[in-house]
Amino acid sequence: MWMCTNCRHLEVAVERPERCPLCGVPAEKFVKYEASQVKGTRTLQNLQNGFVAESKAHVRNLAFALKAEQEGYSQIAKLFRAIAESEGVHAFHHLQLLDAVANTQENLQAAFERENLARKTYPDFIRDANDEGDTATATVFSYHRDVEREHAKLYEKALEHMLAAKDSEYYVCSVCGYVADGAIPDQCPVCGASSEQFRRVA
Amino acid sequence: MWMCTNCRHLEVAVERPERCPLCGVPAEKFVKYEASQVKGTRTLQNLQNGFVAESKAHVRNLAFALKAEQEGYSQIAKLFRAIAESEGVHAFHHLQLLDAVANTQENLQAAFERENLARKTYPDFIRDANDEGDTATATVFSYHRDVEREHAKLYEKALEHMLAAKDSEYYVCSVCGYVADGAIPDQCPVCGASSEQFRRVA
Repeated sequence: MWMCTNCRHLEVAVERPERCPLCGVPAEKFVKYEASQVKGTRTLQNLQNGFVAESKAHVRNLAFALKAEQEGYSQIAKLFRAIAESEGVHAFHHLQLLDAVANTQENLQAAFERENLARKTYPDFIRDANDEGDTATATVFSYHRDVEREHAKLYEKALEHMLAAKDSEYYVCSVCGYVADGAIPDQCPVCGASSEQFRRVA
Repeated sequence: MWMCTNCRHLEVAVERPERCPLCGVPAEKFVKYEASQVKGTRTLQNLQNGFVAESKAHVRNLAFALKAEQEGYSQIAKLFRAIAESEGVHAFHHLQLLDAVANTQENLQAAFERENLARKTYPDFIRDANDEGDTATATVFSYHRDVEREHAKLYEKALEHMLAAKDSEYYVCSVCGYVADGAIPDQCPVCGASSEQFRRVA
């Protein structure tokens, strides 16, 4: 991360930016910004809380946009998508300031470890839902558990072949979130949805 | 929301689905599913925790994708985007099961109220960051505060003119998240970024 010494803009980049996108000053006005060195404990907590709030707002607005489309309010749907994107920019700032984005190899490793955690969490969720007689929610949770297991495999494969030249497509099942690598299956192996339910990832 | 009585698939829709996207049974196999009536307290808490975790994972993966692109790993970037989309599907399920998506008028009202909360939170964050000598983070928080204020205005306007036919574009400042309504400003009124930093919302 780089900080503009003129306007204090923080730029997320590996290389020194050519010029500041805000105030326009040239590259030499940027200094390396090590977020971890300058944060106090309250600010660290605020960044974490802010990251959660902005991430939730991002997803919530996308859901509201879908609902607005279903109800025929396409302009309001567009507004929700716009604000979702804005909240996404903010969530991203928090993440950067928390130093939570490392290099790609480390990011893959961190993502892989988080998936393993998620896989251990969903079985508890499923048990609770069944205990409480909520079989529909238990079913949804079981999709999530199975999909997270597949995520872990995809990350593992990527870690092994990090530098290999590969150019394949990914397709996401819109019913359960399963990620297919390379080709759309006839049926989703997790939830059984038909091939039309898959969306190609841009 | 609708539940397929054959495979227990939950379908997020206003109208009864024509057929189940999973098992293919016709419309009459669907019953109205009132999430709020069937959840136990542990499941409710699990849904809330799951919503937070999946929302964070969604945003984190998008950030990792951006980093991978910057480092030249375009295939890994695509994988991160695919898994981000998958986590988004899961976050969306949680939100639905929490009954957190109402009709569009209520969603706008809820979103408006949440923005007012966010506007009250950021001034505290700014004060903490300044107290702790972290002026760069204070600057980022001040962008967020100003942008959230504008979100509230956009929601207010949408609530007033809910049913009016309007077809305008929104543009989001990629530096601070400011949402411009109708036209790209020469300079972002919040952070001062130039017009090239704005992205049109699809």
